[in-house]
Amino acid sequence: MHAVTFQAPGEVAVEQVAEPVLQARDDVIVRVEASGICGSDLHIYHGRVPVGKGFTIGHEFVGTVTDAGDAVERVAVGDRVLGTFVTACATCTPCIRGDYHRCSHGRTFGHGPNLGDLQGAQAEQLLVPHANLTLRRVPEGMSTDVALFAGDVMGTGYHSIAHAGVRAGDTVAVLGLGPVGLCAIQAAKASGAAQIFAIDTVADRLAMAERFGATPLHLTDDDPKGAVRRATGGGADVTVDAVGDPGPLALAVSLTRDAGVVSGIGAYAGKGEVPLGLAWLKGLQLRLGLANVIAHVDRVLALMQAGILDPAPLVTHHMTLADAPEAYRVYDAREALKIVLTP
Amino acid sequence: MHAVTFQAPGEVAVEQVAEPVLQARDDVIVRVEASGICGSDLHIYHGRVPVGKGFTIGHEFVGTVTDAGDAVERVAVGDRVLGTFVTACATCTPCIRGDYHRCSHGRTFGHGPNLGDLQGAQAEQLLVPHANLTLRRVPEGMSTDVALFAGDVMGTGYHSIAHAGVRAGDTVAVLGLGPVGLCAIQAAKASGAAQIFAIDTVADRLAMAERFGATPLHLTDDDPKGAVRRATGGGADVTVDAVGDPGPLALAVSLTRDAGVVSGIGAYAGKGEVPLGLAWLKGLQLRLGLANVIAHVDRVLALMQAGILDPAPLVTHHMTLADAPEAYRVYDAREALKIVLTP
Amino acid sequence: MHAVTFQAPGEVAVEQVAEPVLQARDDVIVRVEASGICGSDLHIYHGRVPVGKGFTIGHEFVGTVTDAGDAVERVAVGDRVLGTFVTACATCTPCIRGDYHRCSHGRTFGHGPNLGDLQGAQAEQLLVPHANLTLRRVPEGMSTDVALFAGDVMGTGYHSIAHAGVRAGDTVAVLGLGPVGLCAIQAAKASGAAQIFAIDTVADRLAMAERFGATPLHLTDDDPKGAVRRATGGGADVTVDAVGDPGPLALAVSLTRDAGVVSGIGAYAGKGEVPLGLAWLKGLQLRLGLANVIAHVDRVLALMQAGILDPAPLVTHHMTLADAPEAYRVYDAREALKIVLTP
Amino acid sequence: MHAVTFQAPGEVAVEQVAEPVLQARDDVIVRVEASGICGSDLHIYHGRVPVGKGFTIGHEFVGTVTDAGDAVERVAVGDRVLGTFVTACATCTPCIRGDYHRCSHGRTFGHGPNLGDLQGAQAEQLLVPHANLTLRRVPEGMSTDVALFAGDVMGTGYHSIAHAGVRAGDTVAVLGLGPVGLCAIQAAKASGAAQIFAIDTVADRLAMAERFGATPLHLTDDDPKGAVRRATGGGADVTVDAVGDPGPLALAVSLTRDAGVVSGIGAYAGKGEVPLGLAWLKGLQLRLGLANVIAHVDRVLALMQAGILDPAPLVTHHMTLADAPEAYRVYDAREALKIVLTP
Repeated sequence: MHAVTFQAPGEVAVEQVAEPVLQARDDVIVRVEASGICGSDLHIYHGRVPVGKGFTIGHEFVGTVTDAGDAVERVAVGDRVLGTFVTACATCTPCIRGDYHRCSHGRTFGHGPNLGDLQGAQAEQLLVPHANLTLRRVPEGMSTDVALFAGDVMGTGYHSIAHAGVRAGDTVAVLGLGPVGLCAIQAAKASGAAQIFAIDTVADRLAMAERFGATPLHLTDDDPKGAVRRATGGGADVTVDAVGDPGPLALAVSLTRDAGVVSGIGAYAGKGEVPLGLAWLKGLQLRLGLANVIAHVDRVLALMQAGILDPAPLVTHHMTLADAPEAYRVYDAREALKIVLTP
Repeated sequence: MHAVTFQAPGEVAVEQVAEPVLQARDDVIVRVEASGICGSDLHIYHGRVPVGKGFTIGHEFVGTVTDAGDAVERVAVGDRVLGTFVTACATCTPCIRGDYHRCSHGRTFGHGPNLGDLQGAQAEQLLVPHANLTLRRVPEGMSTDVALFAGDVMGTGYHSIAHAGVRAGDTVAVLGLGPVGLCAIQAAKASGAAQIFAIDTVADRLAMAERFGATPLHLTDDDPKGAVRRATGGGADVTVDAVGDPGPLALAVSLTRDAGVVSGIGAYAGKGEVPLGLAWLKGLQLRLGLANVIAHVDRVLALMQAGILDPAPLVTHHMTLADAPEAYRVYDAREALKIVLTP
Repeated sequence: MHAVTFQAPGEVAVEQVAEPVLQARDDVIVRVEASGICGSDLHIYHGRVPVGKGFTIGHEFVGTVTDAGDAVERVAVGDRVLGTFVTACATCTPCIRGDYHRCSHGRTFGHGPNLGDLQGAQAEQLLVPHANLTLRRVPEGMSTDVALFAGDVMGTGYHSIAHAGVRAGDTVAVLGLGPVGLCAIQAAKASGAAQIFAIDTVADRLAMAERFGATPLHLTDDDPKGAVRRATGGGADVTVDAVGDPGPLALAVSLTRDAGVVSGIGAYAGKGEVPLGLAWLKGLQLRLGLANVIAHVDRVLALMQAGILDPAPLVTHHMTLADAPEAYRVYDAREALKIVLTP
Repeated sequence: MHAVTFQAPGEVAVEQVAEPVLQARDDVIVRVEASGICGSDLHIYHGRVPVGKGFTIGHEFVGTVTDAGDAVERVAVGDRVLGTFVTACATCTPCIRGDYHRCSHGRTFGHGPNLGDLQGAQAEQLLVPHANLTLRRVPEGMSTDVALFAGDVMGTGYHSIAHAGVRAGDTVAVLGLGPVGLCAIQAAKASGAAQIFAIDTVADRLAMAERFGATPLHLTDDDPKGAVRRATGGGADVTVDAVGDPGPLALAVSLTRDAGVVSGIGAYAGKGEVPLGLAWLKGLQLRLGLANVIAHVDRVLALMQAGILDPAPLVTHHMTLADAPEAYRVYDAREALKIVLTP
């Protein structure tokens, strides 16, 4: 079968690779109908997340079940399904606690040996382990473009809001309007945020945030801190940092009201300087980390099915698997928000 | 000044009564511009809640501050304000816990000697104790009809959802589509309920629920239990009983999924037979009681200001204070959802 | 092998039954070293929970793993283990939510066809399904008598306190001082309850409650309501009903402070009259249902290992499996708190 | 009257100052019977928190009410009382939310113009504003030494545990064994921590932590990270940083299990380098800030009255007000854990 494989930093190829076969009783084989290119694929593309030459990339997918082990209960051969970007075993200590994103045996699709050595979804077929947790049926009538977001980007946007404890009537600020930030805005809106401030420097992204119900604020041309303060008195109840760098985190701390929450969904790396004194004085909570998408996926799908969450506008490009090298070039040049690949 | 006073069961009058004067340093005098007639006023009207002859009724109001004690900080003379239906002292043990609805010194406007002996709001002027908690400014641009709901009926609908812990993506069922049930539907929608089932027997109310985003189910002509079960598998995550009788509570228990929540916002009285075995088997939580409107009012106002909560369609009648006897007759005949009285 | 089997209401026998064999990849076979007789076994003994003639009873056990499927990770052959009284699949919707006690495929050991048709633990050997969730290693140095409680009675006492949200410094009242009520007292103490009131009519049980740190109150000779009110002002923060009847539930409602929690851990059946008006007026939460022992078992074991929870005093009788008919007679006559059977 | 006043960095004096008089209706005058010297007094002593020459220091006190405004309900003239270190108004937006520690009008006793300009408690008399929140009666039989801790150091230790959501059975690590860290250990024990690790470099403090039920670990001579990991598998559920510097915070991040909580109770200042990548990878929550002692004081007192929290061993010195200069020298030299001053 064909698959998009890593070759070298800045280079992917479409190659023939071996077809997957069932290995465990709760495995499923999915014939992939659409896969997405995501910001975290760029870490691989750039060689920051090491994967071997020839390793298949991709962790967002919609497809049809073609084979299933006998312990698979939630889906069956012939079902159209979507997946979460990461697997979980359900029975280790973190899983029993409900922390599926911290599963002791968790494996991320298409992320190489350090993250579970699981081949990726930008391929014609995909092996899906622990399918009872990893897969869900695509609800009737839901488009592929929408379903593709449930287990990754929208699940992450939802997490950034839900894990922060946003309540109906709250004010939310979102820093960084990539796909995750834009999904966070939709999730904030869905959760009853009465005011949403969206902060970035890219005009198109600010415009889309406004379309989703947020007040757009240009990071440097506007005065985000002043604007949020004037609108709220004390600051946002919750600020989402969807960038994942110390700079945005520091801004998030300054935008948030006393005893509020900063939701750090963007991937921080290494060490960073944090305004600890201000965060302490304000009595803030910094809630950091990857999204627990398995815990959220049923609610995310219900919201998508009701039309309350609708990531379709984020899909800027549809391309074929064969065009993957060009698709990665476009995505890396930040010319696209979300590229959907079809076989 | 004129005020609507209780005379005898089934009889109210518009009488001249003494004008209120400030008594404590955190008191305010409000010139009432609009007051509402509410379902709980009927308990007084029918003599079930005892108030003396000549006692002024009413607990929903919007008006302008005409006088304020020197400990009042949140509002000032000249401000347009709305009030909560009940006062709280802020410093007793329940208040310090945040349970303002269980304040040791709480007084309900217009509800007679057993509930704090505080004259009511269906009058030209009103004494408002503990104004720092009881009053809020009407946000700019908000209509009187909308503002009138913030501190009572919409605050109660909001409570029924918030106190039940509804999360974005949940399914909610609401039993009883009086004003509180209809506001609960709006609050559920605002909080991200992906599916809402609205159950009653009155066609108009079912129609309005549908307009608010719910799936209407006639209590007897439809099959609420079957419909909810088919749509959800296991039942609603949260069911609101906005009636307050054992029958609806039993239905709520049967509609709710395992480990779900029944939110009993309707006023239960005396003893009632409850399907304890089923509730126990399902592992339900029954969360009962009056709304903590003081804790919610700022978020409710923010949602109203954003247009997310909009109770205006519930106002079916505008009448004058002088028409109060007729207004009570109409309301008691269930010919109105909400009657707004103006001086 | 020998096993205690149901014969007829009021009659159990020790019979030869077939040895269990592994059926699924996450099954385990345990050689039982000790099993307990529990209050819920009496429902079977009396014929209220129907099990077939010859069905093996018992759901509390400690033993050694003698065989394990290849998907079993948490324990290995040779390990000393204890079990939870109920199994869970880990992957159904309630399990993913963390509601293991409401697992769609949950099976209770030794409770007959309506509760999963799983043979019981009062036997020489036991088949344990879903062993990754159902079993835990007995911590080094922990006695069999103590370990026997972790997955059933102490887990249930812990749940009654944890699920009610008891906080350090709270006042807790416990109604009904059978093994579960007594364990609830230990769990309340462990959770920082500053005052615990223990209510029953049996002198020995009141004495044991006192020994565990509670203030004993005789249901009729003392004045529980007056005593709790005098000590607290407004009532207990949390009241546990460990009986499971409308009478104790009504008392629990009256003992609990405004906006407090009634934890209904005792098994209610059918319908019952509840003081709904009072519960509503107080703004109570009634949290009902079976314990989620799988969610709690690691923390319960940690507390037992630290000596903070110590159910050993509850073991009043050690008998052999061969003595089961006599053991059931003694237990049914309420002459024992906990009987431990050894092979 | 006599009072301990700031003179210059490193110099305090006992001077005659004006006696306080009631200013507001909810003020109280307390005749101070004991006051404490606390770590935060050293910030003033060293000139880091600016107070004017002649300003009275001190924020921990026990005494007797000698005068009270007519809006004071919770205490009366003649009552023995203790106070919280900070006041709150009860009616501003943070207070209504329950965030008394972030009161818009909050004033800290004895901390100079930037923190409310409120004279301190190391004096013969003290003006106590907002006494309904700030004061509590000393429970009968409680020693002055114990009561002195309720509104400051023990309240802070309690907060570090309660605000982190410690549950019975959890493992807790505490970094920094000054009075707050030692109180955090007691609070962790009271809240059911099954294992507590106490980390410092001072032998006496490690010994006291052990006496309070913790496992002492010398920061450098032992291997705290290895020890916690060996005992827990994945790390502590909650780690308290009672130091308030980036170094301990980084250690706290490394000691805490995936999806756990770091409770930053120590006062951070300025900016600091944080291992954001590791914290994000683990999915940690950092909960920072001052203690909400007003919210906790009733539960803290209940635990002290029950003997569950007992800070008496922390009192290493009793001295007189006249000895304050010497007391400050001793405390600054770290020769004392807690010094109690009596008039």
